[in-house]
Amino acid sequence: MSYSLQQTSLLAPHLGDDELTALFSTDADIGAMLQFEQALAKCQASAGLIPQASAVAITSSLKSPKLDHSLLSGGIGRDGMVVPGLIAQLRSVLPTEARDHLHFGSTSQDVIDTSLMLRSKLAFGILAARLKATITDLNHASNQYGKNQLMARTRMQQALPIVVADRIQTWSAGFQSTLNASQNLKFPVQMGGPIGTLRNDALKKAIAKELALDVIPHNWHAERSPVVALANAASAITGAAGKLGMDVCLMAQNEFAEIALSGGGTSSAMHHKQNPIGAEALVTLARFNAVLISAMHQSLVHEQERSGAAWTLEWMVLPQMLVAAGAATRLTMQVLRSITKIGS
Amino acid sequence: MSYSLQQTSLLAPHLGDDELTALFSTDADIGAMLQFEQALAKCQASAGLIPQASAVAITSSLKSPKLDHSLLSGGIGRDGMVVPGLIAQLRSVLPTEARDHLHFGSTSQDVIDTSLMLRSKLAFGILAARLKATITDLNHASNQYGKNQLMARTRMQQALPIVVADRIQTWSAGFQSTLNASQNLKFPVQMGGPIGTLRNDALKKAIAKELALDVIPHNWHAERSPVVALANAASAITGAAGKLGMDVCLMAQNEFAEIALSGGGTSSAMHHKQNPIGAEALVTLARFNAVLISAMHQSLVHEQERSGAAWTLEWMVLPQMLVAAGAATRLTMQVLRSITKIGS
Amino acid sequence: MSYSLQQTSLLAPHLGDDELTALFSTDADIGAMLQFEQALAKCQASAGLIPQASAVAITSSLKSPKLDHSLLSGGIGRDGMVVPGLIAQLRSVLPTEARDHLHFGSTSQDVIDTSLMLRSKLAFGILAARLKATITDLNHASNQYGKNQLMARTRMQQALPIVVADRIQTWSAGFQSTLNASQNLKFPVQMGGPIGTLRNDALKKAIAKELALDVIPHNWHAERSPVVALANAASAITGAAGKLGMDVCLMAQNEFAEIALSGGGTSSAMHHKQNPIGAEALVTLARFNAVLISAMHQSLVHEQERSGAAWTLEWMVLPQMLVAAGAATRLTMQVLRSITKIGS
Amino acid sequence: MSYSLQQTSLLAPHLGDDELTALFSTDADIGAMLQFEQALAKCQASAGLIPQASAVAITSSLKSPKLDHSLLSGGIGRDGMVVPGLIAQLRSVLPTEARDHLHFGSTSQDVIDTSLMLRSKLAFGILAARLKATITDLNHASNQYGKNQLMARTRMQQALPIVVADRIQTWSAGFQSTLNASQNLKFPVQMGGPIGTLRNDALKKAIAKELALDVIPHNWHAERSPVVALANAASAITGAAGKLGMDVCLMAQNEFAEIALSGGGTSSAMHHKQNPIGAEALVTLARFNAVLISAMHQSLVHEQERSGAAWTLEWMVLPQMLVAAGAATRLTMQVLRSITKIGS
Repeated sequence: MSYSLQQTSLLAPHLGDDELTALFSTDADIGAMLQFEQALAKCQASAGLIPQASAVAITSSLKSPKLDHSLLSGGIGRDGMVVPGLIAQLRSVLPTEARDHLHFGSTSQDVIDTSLMLRSKLAFGILAARLKATITDLNHASNQYGKNQLMARTRMQQALPIVVADRIQTWSAGFQSTLNASQNLKFPVQMGGPIGTLRNDALKKAIAKELALDVIPHNWHAERSPVVALANAASAITGAAGKLGMDVCLMAQNEFAEIALSGGGTSSAMHHKQNPIGAEALVTLARFNAVLISAMHQSLVHEQERSGAAWTLEWMVLPQMLVAAGAATRLTMQVLRSITKIGS
Repeated sequence: MSYSLQQTSLLAPHLGDDELTALFSTDADIGAMLQFEQALAKCQASAGLIPQASAVAITSSLKSPKLDHSLLSGGIGRDGMVVPGLIAQLRSVLPTEARDHLHFGSTSQDVIDTSLMLRSKLAFGILAARLKATITDLNHASNQYGKNQLMARTRMQQALPIVVADRIQTWSAGFQSTLNASQNLKFPVQMGGPIGTLRNDALKKAIAKELALDVIPHNWHAERSPVVALANAASAITGAAGKLGMDVCLMAQNEFAEIALSGGGTSSAMHHKQNPIGAEALVTLARFNAVLISAMHQSLVHEQERSGAAWTLEWMVLPQMLVAAGAATRLTMQVLRSITKIGS
Repeated sequence: MSYSLQQTSLLAPHLGDDELTALFSTDADIGAMLQFEQALAKCQASAGLIPQASAVAITSSLKSPKLDHSLLSGGIGRDGMVVPGLIAQLRSVLPTEARDHLHFGSTSQDVIDTSLMLRSKLAFGILAARLKATITDLNHASNQYGKNQLMARTRMQQALPIVVADRIQTWSAGFQSTLNASQNLKFPVQMGGPIGTLRNDALKKAIAKELALDVIPHNWHAERSPVVALANAASAITGAAGKLGMDVCLMAQNEFAEIALSGGGTSSAMHHKQNPIGAEALVTLARFNAVLISAMHQSLVHEQERSGAAWTLEWMVLPQMLVAAGAATRLTMQVLRSITKIGS
Repeated sequence: MSYSLQQTSLLAPHLGDDELTALFSTDADIGAMLQFEQALAKCQASAGLIPQASAVAITSSLKSPKLDHSLLSGGIGRDGMVVPGLIAQLRSVLPTEARDHLHFGSTSQDVIDTSLMLRSKLAFGILAARLKATITDLNHASNQYGKNQLMARTRMQQALPIVVADRIQTWSAGFQSTLNASQNLKFPVQMGGPIGTLRNDALKKAIAKELALDVIPHNWHAERSPVVALANAASAITGAAGKLGMDVCLMAQNEFAEIALSGGGTSSAMHHKQNPIGAEALVTLARFNAVLISAMHQSLVHEQERSGAAWTLEWMVLPQMLVAAGAATRLTMQVLRSITKIGS
């Protein structure tokens, strides 16, 4: 799963996220696949399933293999995924006797799913750190502006006076909820073999330990709730940020002037304007993920032992959702740090 | 939140669910609202916030109040929700001195959100029981047919032989995952007052205890992750059932004949046909919820202290999702119990 | 397709639409099915395909048949749709020699799809009339308030002064666009027989003429773009109304006071408030249909000659979308007629 | 709007489309923006709105300007879009007296929307040509295999025998419907000035003629039905292809063997397998666009004279939808041309 969307476009500096995008680059995907194959060989050798010499040859050869990318591309066009072509290339430079011990007992989905989880774990690590920083930033803002007056508004009408700390508390609660949810996520290894029926729990645990991933009781080739959980969490993050973004857009309306921000987008035609483009991008990213989440739930309808159609749909969608969550956390901090006043 | 969709239509006997629909009827919604108001008065009296006599008058009067439904309807058209009109009616028959003690310190959203949680807790209770029954049914099926041969299929092509127990295990894992997720749900009471700033934790806990609901640290008037969590869980249920449904549809293809079902839909034109309508409805319900989930995530973008637009969107969508989950669990059991053979 | 959602709930007076809901009631659905069967018999008799006497018996018997609704319900649970059970009941009271001439050469899908189109045509007739009335209302508002000053706002920030007529013109353009789109819709008859291969163009034209429906070159049993077109149009209507609703919500903010509305929702806790509940419901309905549209596009993936799963998904979604469009047009007019001032 | 998703990833050779992706590259976007600015200057000079000498300087300078891309990126991060920074760079190399005549009376949205339409028109030109080629391919397939026997299937069950031509006719009807819809699309120029109130119809027509675009009566800065129409058409294309793809996947099931395809994906673990990866990708792309369409309809809710949030959402979604339509048409032709047998 590598789908580097926000990376190469005019939107990248605004709606992308370099750190998250890097995790879903081709290089990072293949890098994680190589990690899986190395861990697999190492653990299989320890368990006596393949010769130790093969494992040594494999781990050594896969450290920094020279790959012919145009050959990989051809394989993707033919196979709908990179693994068969990648394994063929990797095998071709192994000693003959070790070739069959690479990717032994495994299948493309073990490689691709585990690579996804390796990088998703890193992604949620970054996101969690940013969520914590956001909550800290909100605490600072509350300390600084918390006692200022603000008008509570319900249904977009003035309700009753509150203080700034009241509204910040709701924002914080959103980020805290999503942080909690993120920290409960599981990032399981996948090792089910060609049709998902391999049940070597010891091997699975060993690989998981090697890769610092989780183990869940079942092979999830065709039971995709672990992947949907990541998407739900990504959308919860953009949702929490979108709520803050919407509030900031409303507070920044000229007549309200409930918030002041430094920086702000300029207009090609109206030079007096200061556009709260960070805050409105948060709304965009929330709506974007709120749309994409639908695809991930659709992919729960997974035919038989492996659905090419449903699985591929995940590839097109999940990386985008995680990068959007990255952009949302980045922009949230940027917005918060540009605040020069809240309330009065 | 009452939105009784599958109830009154030609689709109800097929795609509805009597038990779940009943929970989201007008009567059930108002009933739960009355429960909240009674618990509120009782707990406020215990805390010395309102006179004990008022609490007695309120709990007694609200046990089975006579309500003028056409007056309620008029109020809904005017206010966009039932609560203001309902409270007015309830107050009109209370002793004068108790009137202001009904709904004291509370707001429409406290009533509506808590009513939702009361009924959602019942809904997930029913769903969990059915998920357990489904897992039991699957165990029985595995005992009966588990050693039969089946062809594993990946990307809709024959892969390698498996036994029936292998496929059933994936189905069970899906239901078990969603059961686990359902059992981790929180059903929090809402008691935040007009603008969500009331922070009387003792009162909140007392009401929660009275109503057997949960307490979470923050008021969630404008932080809707607790509601989205219910929707995620509902869609996980329909997704797990949709995976099974899709597999059954494929297994029931005449040339496959990997499953045999008693009953089955008839055709108005082709009398030889036996349509696996239960199984295909599971696919429909999964796709339905996979679409609706998007609305719930959109509603995370909630303006200020209360968004009429985002909140109302939840009302239109969440009850449908829960009823769809109900229908999916009902139909799953119906399909499983109609099996007369799996594999060969 | 009858799925009367907004009808029986606490939301009906606010988010429903009596006229549109009536078109998607069980009675209206069955009524339109009877119309189809009568037209079919009449046209088949004219073409010499069935005896004239049978056509007379059928049209007479189907004028106001006594139907056992609990029997119909049982059939729906068994067959996943009403038609087989309905035809069986209707045949049982026909003279023996006419029985096979009812529903002759036809299939459930011909009946259900044509019933949908009969009622959708009526629905879009109502919607078009309301869209025209809306455009007229907007013209009146422009005449009355058009020269008043208003602040143009881009990215939610003050841009440059405009007059009220400028903004009304954008609103009108939205309704005019969607009116144009609605008026280009086709409402084709369906008459393809059991597997959609019947190609009796003369018969199709005759039935279409009898029912005032359109004819398209192909049978659309499994090519569902004619149905998706209805959904696109419904969502365009709620979208145009949602844009107006969002603007009205923003204009009605107290500090802006760019619009004044009579009526307005009350609050159970804050008696000074006037909530623009009609305008915000327009936003809700737009977002609702913008979500549901996804299901209709999903249903384009239609297996073989008839997909039970995809077709049933249409049933669960399209009526809701049309009723939402009805509610949006109704509420738009209500909002416009409650305006007592725009601009200054 | 440039969002080159499928371009730089492992998925590009399978799910991308070089021709379509190129249209939504950064270079193509900026190229089309330059075209707009040149046409604007030229037409304004002809109308006497700016000096002829300025137009000459502008059109000459914009033919192949040297742009500092890192400066552009910085601008995007600051302004949320490329135009302000781009115009600043372009002006900096113009003669002083011509600087204000570049982008004269225009606004970022005029540039961005017109650039979108210029490239969308090219995109739909490519798509229409492929749809026609697809229909031709289907006619050939019908000539070659049309009389072969096939089993019609409804609700995934055997119904009645048909010939291959019957099923191909449904596929063709889908592509023909979407071709018709594509050919009715409008690609309007946008020239409304800072707040969309400029109504210089002569200028708009002149620019449209220069750029071979359409003119519609209103400025569509905040009335986005013209953009949604493109998205509806893109999803109709992927939907028609997805229906064919689903049928091919089902026909290619080993026990059915109703279709034979040359090529086909290989498996890393099961060397006997031939996976119909093109056909299943068609299903994926249909479901992908059926999800994304929701975002485009959400963006109809557009605040005031310009919604940053809603407009940006279009940018993130529409290019992906058009590239997906490109991939679907490319893969459809690839699948059709790999057929070596249909029916028996």
